[in-house]
Amino acid sequence: MNNILSKISHPKQLRALDTTQLTALAYEMREFILDTLSVKPGHLGASLGVVELTIALHYYYNTPEDLLIWDVGHQSYPHKILTGRQQLFDSLRQKNGISGFPSRTESEFDTFGTGHSSTSVSAIVGMATADKINQINRKHIAIIGDASITSGMSLEALNHLGSTDLDVLIILNDNNIGIDDSVGGLKKYFKSLENQTENIFTNFGLNFIGTIDGHNFEELFSAFDKANSIKGPKVLHIKTIKGKGYDLAEIDQVKWHAPGLFNKLTGEISQSKSSTTYQDIFGETLLDLLKNNSKIVAITPAMLTGSSLIKSRNQFPDRVIDVGIAEQHAVTFAAGLATQNTVPYCVIYSTFLQRAYDQVIHDIALQNLHVVFCIDRAGFVGTDGATHHGIFDISFLREVPNMIVSSPRNEKDFRNLLYTAQFTKQPFAIRYPKNEIPLSPDSTYEKIEIGKSEIIFEGNKLAILSTGLISSRIEKIIEQNNLQDKIALIDFPFIKPLDESRLKAISLKYDTILTFEDGIKKGGFGSGVLEFLNSIHYKGNTTINGYPDEFIEHASIKELEEMVGLDDLSILQMILNYL
Amino acid sequence: MNNILSKISHPKQLRALDTTQLTALAYEMREFILDTLSVKPGHLGASLGVVELTIALHYYYNTPEDLLIWDVGHQSYPHKILTGRQQLFDSLRQKNGISGFPSRTESEFDTFGTGHSSTSVSAIVGMATADKINQINRKHIAIIGDASITSGMSLEALNHLGSTDLDVLIILNDNNIGIDDSVGGLKKYFKSLENQTENIFTNFGLNFIGTIDGHNFEELFSAFDKANSIKGPKVLHIKTIKGKGYDLAEIDQVKWHAPGLFNKLTGEISQSKSSTTYQDIFGETLLDLLKNNSKIVAITPAMLTGSSLIKSRNQFPDRVIDVGIAEQHAVTFAAGLATQNTVPYCVIYSTFLQRAYDQVIHDIALQNLHVVFCIDRAGFVGTDGATHHGIFDISFLREVPNMIVSSPRNEKDFRNLLYTAQFTKQPFAIRYPKNEIPLSPDSTYEKIEIGKSEIIFEGNKLAILSTGLISSRIEKIIEQNNLQDKIALIDFPFIKPLDESRLKAISLKYDTILTFEDGIKKGGFGSGVLEFLNSIHYKGNTTINGYPDEFIEHASIKELEEMVGLDDLSILQMILNYL
Repeated sequence: MNNILSKISHPKQLRALDTTQLTALAYEMREFILDTLSVKPGHLGASLGVVELTIALHYYYNTPEDLLIWDVGHQSYPHKILTGRQQLFDSLRQKNGISGFPSRTESEFDTFGTGHSSTSVSAIVGMATADKINQINRKHIAIIGDASITSGMSLEALNHLGSTDLDVLIILNDNNIGIDDSVGGLKKYFKSLENQTENIFTNFGLNFIGTIDGHNFEELFSAFDKANSIKGPKVLHIKTIKGKGYDLAEIDQVKWHAPGLFNKLTGEISQSKSSTTYQDIFGETLLDLLKNNSKIVAITPAMLTGSSLIKSRNQFPDRVIDVGIAEQHAVTFAAGLATQNTVPYCVIYSTFLQRAYDQVIHDIALQNLHVVFCIDRAGFVGTDGATHHGIFDISFLREVPNMIVSSPRNEKDFRNLLYTAQFTKQPFAIRYPKNEIPLSPDSTYEKIEIGKSEIIFEGNKLAILSTGLISSRIEKIIEQNNLQDKIALIDFPFIKPLDESRLKAISLKYDTILTFEDGIKKGGFGSGVLEFLNSIHYKGNTTINGYPDEFIEHASIKELEEMVGLDDLSILQMILNYL
Repeated sequence: MNNILSKISHPKQLRALDTTQLTALAYEMREFILDTLSVKPGHLGASLGVVELTIALHYYYNTPEDLLIWDVGHQSYPHKILTGRQQLFDSLRQKNGISGFPSRTESEFDTFGTGHSSTSVSAIVGMATADKINQINRKHIAIIGDASITSGMSLEALNHLGSTDLDVLIILNDNNIGIDDSVGGLKKYFKSLENQTENIFTNFGLNFIGTIDGHNFEELFSAFDKANSIKGPKVLHIKTIKGKGYDLAEIDQVKWHAPGLFNKLTGEISQSKSSTTYQDIFGETLLDLLKNNSKIVAITPAMLTGSSLIKSRNQFPDRVIDVGIAEQHAVTFAAGLATQNTVPYCVIYSTFLQRAYDQVIHDIALQNLHVVFCIDRAGFVGTDGATHHGIFDISFLREVPNMIVSSPRNEKDFRNLLYTAQFTKQPFAIRYPKNEIPLSPDSTYEKIEIGKSEIIFEGNKLAILSTGLISSRIEKIIEQNNLQDKIALIDFPFIKPLDESRLKAISLKYDTILTFEDGIKKGGFGSGVLEFLNSIHYKGNTTINGYPDEFIEHASIKELEEMVGLDDLSILQMILNYL
């Protein structure tokens, strides 16, 4: 089948081909990607869109000596396939398999890890600056999407680059879409960018080449020739089609961004999902809240679909606002809203909230503004891996004055936290995982008392204090093993403020306390419990359980929990050991 | 003297004046600012530059009903003076006095706190969106400098704004300088922006007005008329001169940005500074390192002067790089450099590192890249206040895998940490305060063992563990009170990794342990010590000392230490209580 592709284990072999063979290679590449991803889920659309571009780059440039960065990294599959990882491709995003993003530890061709978007311009400017200092002469190329390039850090980097004489080529891969539709003033502008000689990039001080068809080899090679002839930094504007070559994916680009399992021939996508997730409950609840409180405004930085906001956006287009890949702006925009008698719900993945930490501190918490942070994908996210796990948020939010930090263990608490948050007059963070949610029969809304913990079991041998989904998992473990008499399980929906009176009572009754959380241990929930227990001179034994002090790769969430010793069996064994 | 100004305690009184009186008022305003700041130090240059603009805005618009945001906030002095704070102006930046930045708790005219730059566009878009939802019709105006507007978050906000129909006016106050000279491609571009009808702002989807002279009332009012006649969002480009009206300040704009005490008539600036600071030692040491290791590159986001980098930049212009107000880019630019055989020293204030937290995690630590973070202004910064204290960094860095986190107590350790950091092959953070540094006689460089603590005194009653400058303060307190026999003082230059073998030894010897740090307690150094002591089942008493869980306003560093109970006397009393 793959007569050409199967023989390429290094770009050298690609470069030995005749240009007339490249179209056939592109066809084989698409078939290979479709065959693999239909059974091993991954990011389909973006990778299909850059097949010709990837072939052309590795054909024309001398990789890995010349440096390529793919931004955002999920468009790197053809790059991985051409650079020695064809045989490994069906291990994509699985435990011990290759990563879904470029990874420096995986290949010398992956010059920079790009799990988060919009980093490539900064990184390539850094690389080119280093080469200038070290007097190394080679090419530096970043490929960045039209949604990614509008993020603040890309624009900062373009501004810097424009004042240098560095030999850097930025390829703007313009497919006019991100994961969802692109937004913002520049989206419209890019449509008119075609072949303009004076434009936003030349304003930044950059040379401009384009616009060309990114699926046409001749146009690509001729543009590379032109780029080589221009000294200093330049931008090449190419147009591509996300999902190119697979009709269904071209037509419904949002659905086919990362479709999961599908039948390549019929295009049927597996409806494998049977259980209700936190995301489902979030979407439903937010819609309820929007209906019942006209002051509520939801904000997402380019994650309408991922955060289950589509339905709410369709019903309340003026009050569900996608600001694009712009986390810093999203949070301070929410701050502005909060000053003027609205209640912003800023919906953001835990790992991306790291991008707006100063805005959380300086613009929200310092001014004690009433912004609700709905922190999605907290804890392990699974196959997206180390770049996407939401493991730092408890620690980095717990130290911020004025913040309420919460995490619901089940549907009821989740709904009620989302409901309650609209009434508090201070910043309120609700962290929740990408996972099945334990459902609750009664779904009426009621206000939760801020800072109150809940006793689930009141056994007498040892006390377990936990927060978030892991509380429900431990509840089940205790029930299934009939340990209710021996173990006290207390759930802390509030990590901050801590229920100190309960902690005091527990400290008087139990000699052994275990804490559990879906996050990194250093500075987290357990650390907060320990700080308080220490302040009241508790002399029993406390053990903190959470994630270790290391970055953890991709695998299923269950596998990851096993890796850190927080799977059900390990938890049970630990509890039994303490009894 | 101030015939007009002294009668204005609210903009209503300003609006009752005849326009012919405004030039005289501007003159009085400048005299008032100069008279006050010459004896009560503050940000002179930026405020002198916006005298006419401020008068014109409050004269023309209906403040506080119409909303104004000043970005960055140190250009808000004329605004404060016209809005009821003339009598309080000589309390500027002092304990219990008015803040050097707009503050929502200080005045209804201060709609948004802007201690950090580049937040105003996001905030004003939020305010205008809220007003649209609430059907309130009024004006929304942000005034932002040409250095601030190039920061990523401003550009993100302009991109969002350009796709809306909001009634927002962005005034680009272009004086062609930040604290130091502006940098980047846009700096050059703004020079050519004058009266262009198709430009970078129209590319973003914004209407454009200008360019006008920001010191000319007629031009300002006519531009405001024009802005009112245009529906939707618009940018007004005005040119002003930083330091306007005070010749010396116009000529040397960097020196007169915030000159400290000066003689208004002679222009002589008080050389009050007698002691050597951490900043001085940093500047000297970095220059040494640059001379001796050609791989070292220093990066600053727009703080060349503040971080003592001028001398190094002048000697090594290619290896000391100011990237502008672009913290996210600065850090990922450093990451790119680190991948290609250079050793970047990223010099950044603690409070501004919050802007690049994701870049520290995702681009540096996850890839275990060798970037040295020189974290200036850690701990209390004094009169700049709550927006600028560097109190969160220990906690937010300690949880990041692969990071070395250090803090030197004196000159010797500071030099040696800076020296040692070039040889490690992982991210290395060195935090140091804005303060006098205890000098050391011997200044040869030697490598420090990573993670090693140092016993200063080995008394037998109680152990004090501390990190950073406060270690030296405690050393003095112990010496002056002859407590060496009773108190063990152990300095931890390394917060991470912790010297666990030393902690173990201490735990066996002492029943009472006190920890001290110049940072917030939650999740900090003391919390890390506690986590370890707990893991080895220490049953003695541990007390964590640091800053409380609250935002702390402006005052001198000594006053702030008193406020949190960490002045010398309080520390001595605490120690005596424990003995």
